[in-house]
Amino acid sequence: MSKGRLIIFSAPSGCGKGTMLEQILKNDKFCVSVSATTRNPREGEVNGVNYHFISREDFLKRVENGEFIEHAEYCNNLYGTLHSEVDRKINEGKNVILEIEVQGAMNVMKNVPDALSVFIAPPSVNELRRRLNKRGTETQEVIEERVSQAEREISCADKYDYIIINDALEDAIDDFFSVIRAEELKSVNQPSLVSDILNK
Amino acid sequence: MSKGRLIIFSAPSGCGKGTMLEQILKNDKFCVSVSATTRNPREGEVNGVNYHFISREDFLKRVENGEFIEHAEYCNNLYGTLHSEVDRKINEGKNVILEIEVQGAMNVMKNVPDALSVFIAPPSVNELRRRLNKRGTETQEVIEERVSQAEREISCADKYDYIIINDALEDAIDDFFSVIRAEELKSVNQPSLVSDILNK
Repeated sequence: MSKGRLIIFSAPSGCGKGTMLEQILKNDKFCVSVSATTRNPREGEVNGVNYHFISREDFLKRVENGEFIEHAEYCNNLYGTLHSEVDRKINEGKNVILEIEVQGAMNVMKNVPDALSVFIAPPSVNELRRRLNKRGTETQEVIEERVSQAEREISCADKYDYIIINDALEDAIDDFFSVIRAEELKSVNQPSLVSDILNK
Repeated sequence: MSKGRLIIFSAPSGCGKGTMLEQILKNDKFCVSVSATTRNPREGEVNGVNYHFISREDFLKRVENGEFIEHAEYCNNLYGTLHSEVDRKINEGKNVILEIEVQGAMNVMKNVPDALSVFIAPPSVNELRRRLNKRGTETQEVIEERVSQAEREISCADKYDYIIINDALEDAIDDFFSVIRAEELKSVNQPSLVSDILNK
């Protein structure tokens, strides 16, 4: 069985990342990475499924030991992705999707050079604004803040290996699977193939 | 309209290259390169369609001018691929497939660094031998000669960007189109995309 890949997956808010992920995860060659966190479990959350719940002391020790691919603090709680968590799943042949914002993604690219990075973009900033307005759930101020944030994120898209425009959902998902398949077919990613063909 | 790519396409004899090409060329984003040759046209052959028929003097002058991506001599006739022929089609947005044997492919990789190279391989050498035997059209000696030739070619497969196993034809064609789509989605191959998204 061949190993999986770590897939860095980023998209600005309003680009349909959640729906795309839901569809992708129906394919059992894909899974998401379970983060470690120092926050307390909420009702119904299961250790090892929703998060790996660990103490702040343990978390910081692991940071010091270089056990995290990336970590960050939000609202006084630490969150991060453990190398061990990702490696275990990759060795099981799974493609591990790490859904992460742009700054975290840049750190992961540095720490895991063979990770594959995919940026999901809207067809245009104006189309993104239309989508956010259409939801009708946010004030104009919040929408413009999100658009500005999206613009900052899109400016970094060319740091990713691939950029997929999510205009029609099915096409974007097809594009994602094409990227994954093509990566598998790269000769550098099939190092034992030539000798397998010759000796079988 | 975005530009196409030059696609180096190689496969040992018996790997279903012809059938694959036939299917691929049904998609009008793809075409084959028309070679230049010094041999005389056969009945029914049309200049500019089957070949560009040119004189030996003209051919050699063009070789000297560096107008060929690759060229070779067979049976006292010169054959080659002109940069101008490929560039014109690429600028029309076509992906130009150059069906070529391994040694020629290596030269093209050197002369056209942004060409995309795809090697089509059999699942195994033994399976290739079975396929050649099944045809029942060649002597055992010819078959073993072809198998040896295939082995030499397969040994070079890791010099190509991608290796696709042609086990089931439809899967191999899907793989080919995944490779082409993924290449289009590479951020380095979409240099103006970020500014397009931001400014539209």
